[in-house]
Amino acid sequence: MQEAHPHFVRTPSGLLDVLPSWNDGPVKESILAFINDVTAREGPSFVPSEERIAVFDNDGTLWCEQPMPIQGLFLFDRLKVLFRERPELQTRPPFSYVASGGHLQLAQLGKKGLAELFFATHTGVTSDQFALIARQWLFAAQHPQLHRPVLDCAYLPMLELIALLERADFTCFVVTGGGVDFVRACSFELYGIPRHQIVGSRAKTKLEAEGAHLDVVKLAQLESFDDREAKVLSIEQQIGARPIFAFGNSDGDLPMLRYTAAGSGRRFVALLHHDDAEREYAYDRNFAVSPLSLGLDEARERDWLVSMKDAFAQVFTPWPRVTA
Amino acid sequence: MQEAHPHFVRTPSGLLDVLPSWNDGPVKESILAFINDVTAREGPSFVPSEERIAVFDNDGTLWCEQPMPIQGLFLFDRLKVLFRERPELQTRPPFSYVASGGHLQLAQLGKKGLAELFFATHTGVTSDQFALIARQWLFAAQHPQLHRPVLDCAYLPMLELIALLERADFTCFVVTGGGVDFVRACSFELYGIPRHQIVGSRAKTKLEAEGAHLDVVKLAQLESFDDREAKVLSIEQQIGARPIFAFGNSDGDLPMLRYTAAGSGRRFVALLHHDDAEREYAYDRNFAVSPLSLGLDEARERDWLVSMKDAFAQVFTPWPRVTA
Repeated sequence: MQEAHPHFVRTPSGLLDVLPSWNDGPVKESILAFINDVTAREGPSFVPSEERIAVFDNDGTLWCEQPMPIQGLFLFDRLKVLFRERPELQTRPPFSYVASGGHLQLAQLGKKGLAELFFATHTGVTSDQFALIARQWLFAAQHPQLHRPVLDCAYLPMLELIALLERADFTCFVVTGGGVDFVRACSFELYGIPRHQIVGSRAKTKLEAEGAHLDVVKLAQLESFDDREAKVLSIEQQIGARPIFAFGNSDGDLPMLRYTAAGSGRRFVALLHHDDAEREYAYDRNFAVSPLSLGLDEARERDWLVSMKDAFAQVFTPWPRVTA
Repeated sequence: MQEAHPHFVRTPSGLLDVLPSWNDGPVKESILAFINDVTAREGPSFVPSEERIAVFDNDGTLWCEQPMPIQGLFLFDRLKVLFRERPELQTRPPFSYVASGGHLQLAQLGKKGLAELFFATHTGVTSDQFALIARQWLFAAQHPQLHRPVLDCAYLPMLELIALLERADFTCFVVTGGGVDFVRACSFELYGIPRHQIVGSRAKTKLEAEGAHLDVVKLAQLESFDDREAKVLSIEQQIGARPIFAFGNSDGDLPMLRYTAAGSGRRFVALLHHDDAEREYAYDRNFAVSPLSLGLDEARERDWLVSMKDAFAQVFTPWPRVTA
């Protein structure tokens, strides 16, 4: 039943090859075949547009997460600001570990220490204030190893894939273990995805009235850490439908991938494997923040694995940008 | 600065009068003036499309909530099914109050009794199963007093307003105190609004694996009752931005209306007053389920009040439908 056009995709404006940064090969072919199948109105795998839900993990799937997730870079920069405002903090753990410098890894802080650093840098402000703080950082910060703006650390092939899915009447969501407010602060400029299509971890909040102001204040208490099973529950809560397309890169994404695969009808599930030390990074089981271990075995078995080295013709946008 | 076209709205396809079911008058004029202002690219009130967020309450704002909210009708019909399956339930409160018949009002059951009825009829199934149950009911049920399908109990002027806002590049959300799953089961067919743009009350959930199945199960425990302040917190959590347009009809919507009004720049805030006993219902302070009392005073003072009698040229779609 499938049309003999594996390299082209049917969109409202016609048949297009729109994944130039993907190498020809089985992954690109399976993406295009999937989109063609679910959009073929007379085909056996047709899915109406309101049910074309695609979910993407963020860190390591849509943009670089090494040497640490970009929100971690933000956290350490915010701590420097905090230490200038409240120098006494620097003598108290867990802040003292950070203040003493060295090659600190996020994972070494432990869950409680990490939470304290997050609350100190991400809460106690209104949601509008936090959005402003995050945006100011995001639109100025440089990646410490890639030597390009952090907003140019998204993977070009994934940007093309999101754009292609949207043209084929999918609704794309980012489902992240990172802070939902942080990703929303740049999601539209970075991915073309509006804020309400970001699902992620969040602090508890309260409503605060002061004079004519009425604001939502972020509290130093975790409401949801959207990792593993919690990703599925948050998808159900916020999206209200089982995705037919899911892309992740770590064990934290495995329940979301399994949930997508367990639905009836045509599905696309993929797990990005960072095996490209030359152009990006090579890691899986050894990444303490977000390992790919059980997921690596399962993805191999179920044919979900996407090798960055093989599949990506280009990893990032060309930088520095060429201006005419 | 405002253009002299209060009766027309600028959309990508031109200037259109698209509210035929609204009477000419101050409310229709203020809606069209607002849309014209925020979409005028060179004007002082321009808002980029990604920030054009509109929120609507559901029961009593988009569709009829008398003699009780439509989800209440569903609940009592589900209880009848439940009593056939488990007759022993009928002797135990709060089920016995329902089984004995009579003119029971939802509000008389108390918070705890009501919660028990809700859990019995809305949880203990997977989210996919609940969606199916709700859809089967919604697409067959008749309104007991209006004598038309419940899916024809939406207000035609509000459907036109949603369609107009979407054409003007707004994103419209329903923010309901009702169950988010129930509204999602018909939101696309009823309002043209996709499931992920529904925000509402919800039960706690868990992930359950059985063989090849992996499902989200609804538990008999409330996670969020999206009324009053909780509406604002859920807007922040799910939409991630302060709306610039809000429409409600009860005290439960007041914090959402105030939150919208408290933002900077051009805003539109409205409260529907059910003062039309002839074509629909007339009620405000006396409706036990969802009173309009404090909100009535504040809306009068802040010029938010919309009289159904005056503003709606037509209330519902013509029924029975005329077929050619």
